[in-house]
Amino acid sequence: MHRALALARTAAAAGEVPVGAVLVDGKSGELLAEGHNLVETRHDPTAHAELLVIREAAEKLGQTRLEQADLYVTLEPCPMCAAAISFARLRRVYFGAYDPKGGGVDHGPRIFEQPTCHHRPEVIGGMEETACAEILRDFFKARR
Amino acid sequence: MHRALALARTAAAAGEVPVGAVLVDGKSGELLAEGHNLVETRHDPTAHAELLVIREAAEKLGQTRLEQADLYVTLEPCPMCAAAISFARLRRVYFGAYDPKGGGVDHGPRIFEQPTCHHRPEVIGGMEETACAEILRDFFKARR
Repeated sequence: MHRALALARTAAAAGEVPVGAVLVDGKSGELLAEGHNLVETRHDPTAHAELLVIREAAEKLGQTRLEQADLYVTLEPCPMCAAAISFARLRRVYFGAYDPKGGGVDHGPRIFEQPTCHHRPEVIGGMEETACAEILRDFFKARR
Repeated sequence: MHRALALARTAAAAGEVPVGAVLVDGKSGELLAEGHNLVETRHDPTAHAELLVIREAAEKLGQTRLEQADLYVTLEPCPMCAAAISFARLRRVYFGAYDPKGGGVDHGPRIFEQPTCHHRPEVIGGMEETACAEILRDFFKARR
């Protein structure tokens, strides 16, 4: 999560909403992909940190299912990313700050709790919560 | 929708789940992007037709919001794509077949009805429903 926090800081410096993500092989500990939000830079509304690392790892490994992969992300995934996590069959999701307005795991549509959800990863929320939330708060405060 | 159906047939021939999508400027009628599911070809669990056309159009236009864009897609969008449609601020979504198992608009998490959903497009479901559903049914029947 410390690496994800560093990536979030890089995002903030680039004018991107500061969310960082790291995908690792949960068994070997090998780094599969890392990244941060790139919505503004790429002019891509889907370029959230989680989607980027899932795509990168899946393409690199040549498989659409990443059943041994654990995701570390500084913010609760939104509904789009939560559904992508489910499609990619990630093993575990560790997230930092909770997101009552935009989250899709513990808030809003609670994607993994839907009866039609095909795969529910293990979810651990609130990891390094204070630091993860602070980066976001500082970013939006400076923009106001 | 006829163009989206043709794209779905192309997808089926390539061994991809046959869903096609076309994004047009709702005012000028200009084609912004078109595509079909490429999950298997690209080894990308997020490469649904809707996400691909949104990304292509947004990058081409250099903007993350596509407020004049109308999407034609042969299947009810899943929760991931529905959330992406909301982020991209699409004006209208016309879809063909309903998807009780995997849909996220009229089924499952009903993304656009969530109080935390920031943008709800106009939605017209069931357009060319029979033809759209038939392509999917034939595809899965042949695979069994």
